[in-house]
Amino acid sequence: MTADLPRPTAATASPVRIVGSGLLGASLGLALRAAGVDVQLADTSPVSLALARDLGAGTIPDPAADVPEPALVVVSTPPDVAASVVRTELAAHPGAVVTDIASVKAVIAAEVLEGASPDDAARYVGSHPMAGRERSGASGADADLFAGRPWVVVPTESSSPAAVAAARSLASDVGSFVVQMGAAEHDRAVAVVSHLPQVLSSVLASRLNDADETALDLAGQGLRDTTRIAAADSRLWTAILTGNAAALRDELVAVRESLDHVLGAIEQGLADPLAQGAIGPLDRVIRSGNEGAARIPGKHGGAPGRYTEVTVLVPDNPGALGRLFGEVGEAGVNIEDLGIEHSAGQRVGLVRLSVVPQAAAGLEAELDRRGWRVVAR
Amino acid sequence: MTADLPRPTAATASPVRIVGSGLLGASLGLALRAAGVDVQLADTSPVSLALARDLGAGTIPDPAADVPEPALVVVSTPPDVAASVVRTELAAHPGAVVTDIASVKAVIAAEVLEGASPDDAARYVGSHPMAGRERSGASGADADLFAGRPWVVVPTESSSPAAVAAARSLASDVGSFVVQMGAAEHDRAVAVVSHLPQVLSSVLASRLNDADETALDLAGQGLRDTTRIAAADSRLWTAILTGNAAALRDELVAVRESLDHVLGAIEQGLADPLAQGAIGPLDRVIRSGNEGAARIPGKHGGAPGRYTEVTVLVPDNPGALGRLFGEVGEAGVNIEDLGIEHSAGQRVGLVRLSVVPQAAAGLEAELDRRGWRVVAR
Repeated sequence: MTADLPRPTAATASPVRIVGSGLLGASLGLALRAAGVDVQLADTSPVSLALARDLGAGTIPDPAADVPEPALVVVSTPPDVAASVVRTELAAHPGAVVTDIASVKAVIAAEVLEGASPDDAARYVGSHPMAGRERSGASGADADLFAGRPWVVVPTESSSPAAVAAARSLASDVGSFVVQMGAAEHDRAVAVVSHLPQVLSSVLASRLNDADETALDLAGQGLRDTTRIAAADSRLWTAILTGNAAALRDELVAVRESLDHVLGAIEQGLADPLAQGAIGPLDRVIRSGNEGAARIPGKHGGAPGRYTEVTVLVPDNPGALGRLFGEVGEAGVNIEDLGIEHSAGQRVGLVRLSVVPQAAAGLEAELDRRGWRVVAR
Repeated sequence: MTADLPRPTAATASPVRIVGSGLLGASLGLALRAAGVDVQLADTSPVSLALARDLGAGTIPDPAADVPEPALVVVSTPPDVAASVVRTELAAHPGAVVTDIASVKAVIAAEVLEGASPDDAARYVGSHPMAGRERSGASGADADLFAGRPWVVVPTESSSPAAVAAARSLASDVGSFVVQMGAAEHDRAVAVVSHLPQVLSSVLASRLNDADETALDLAGQGLRDTTRIAAADSRLWTAILTGNAAALRDELVAVRESLDHVLGAIEQGLADPLAQGAIGPLDRVIRSGNEGAARIPGKHGGAPGRYTEVTVLVPDNPGALGRLFGEVGEAGVNIEDLGIEHSAGQRVGLVRLSVVPQAAAGLEAELDRRGWRVVAR
């Protein structure tokens, strides 16, 4: 299978210095080593540093030895310390391009550029690999963490073409695909596609603390989906949210306005369910949500709805899924996407298989013939 | 495989009359017919009614003929008309138990019981099968729609034990598992586990209408998960939300308060990121969300975290998933849960396999040996 996923040939010059050896830094080290690039590791915590080295993410340069100068420095610290580390690295390595991989960009760029020399400013470019996980720390590091993910390259007005090219090569070398935009555009984008979902998921999940145990037994896939990212790291997320305060505030103000419309309608409805203004705002928010959700690109960046779902009721017996997917494979049908739904207390699941529309009917007939319980579309 | 999912032996007496032949009514008819129960169908729309009959959900009684009296009437209309239909059915079928399957219960029970005779009141019991879909209409009907789902039986203070038993048998006969609670408790429960997630998902998705195309290219699994249920039917959901106004208002007020705390902190942080009160509230909402999300029961009603995730990078080639699951099956490991993550524009996906903790390391080693790229835990 490995042959299906060719490793890129590294365009990044050795050595790369990675400052901050947590989950992302250590994963980046592993990915670069796998691509044949030499990696120097640094971290304020000697234990984190040694762990990343022991995992194979890079070497710890001996300060007494003649250490080769890095061509590229990657700052992978929490967002609130990224700018000062970038400035330190620009000063310490005057021949290197320096990039940070924090999730917010405008505040960091502003702090980096404030009073910077033209040369220092030219050597800085921001990055944001969209490859978070709910955990943190080098022990979760993986060379494939960035594979198949967007990596946003965020030049400032002062970034040199060479600096931008170095960041783009880095992203490609670890298997990401490159998206390039300015800091303000980036911050607005992640406010709506990442930071607002995080806040709303956390707020929603926090409401479960007041719920009865019995209420939670009624939890279905909808609640599970909407609260999955609520299992987030608070140290990291406080820094992200406060670091993107301006863009996030605009989103939160808009959300509060929508909620006020819903709440106003609900309060009208409490007095009289058919009162003027009791239904219209509820209809508007559901329909507006329909339209917004339809804008999210499907797999491969294609339009949503490119695939047809085939739903199969699967018993929870050893090997049932293996049997199902084995038989789907025998039927010669490629699965474009999949999901599974469970309810508490039941030993069956609904497996949703997305296939190209022209394959759906044949797959359903074949699975039916083989004795599977296919849920009608 | 069908043998793995034994059909229950019906305890429900024939015939059952189903009023409303949309998705849920027609699915219920199919499920009861499959369990050997006779079903009479009714609907205000002759076309919907004929469609449900043609799908095999039941028969349309000839008003001129001598139609057998139903022992049980199931009202599966939209929530806003359920109570008046229940009253009509109680009057028309004085020997029958009548239940409705709408998603809200207290307002319907109050309207049913208002001025009802003791006998009518005794024959009514509420139901709520937790088996919605994002679509509607009989054409999506399926006999397995209720299998493995919770079905809440909601007696009033007047419901007779026989009426409650009839609703419980109905739920079991279509493969659901029965949860019993009062109307107020039910409405509070679904406000937090179903209606609030719907409102927040719709509000979140509605924000995407203002986003740039490029921003949407950065959408990851977090946004997809949190907005999946935003593809909801507005006719149904306006009736549900307004029908549960009291319980939903309490949740929305609490959410607005949480959002105000977040927004207050963000605004403090805009002036000075380390101002008093800029970080604490953000930390609190993330941590509170951690705790709330951890309360959601895992599969089979067990505690979350019972399973260990093994993540595999899968190329998007024909048959790759079939090969993967075939090889997982050969390794003798049972998959307890699964999911897949994609990014726009990439032809690889991350497949997450949940397995019992003691099987994880062996499965990782085996998949690695077979050439799969396993992402480290």
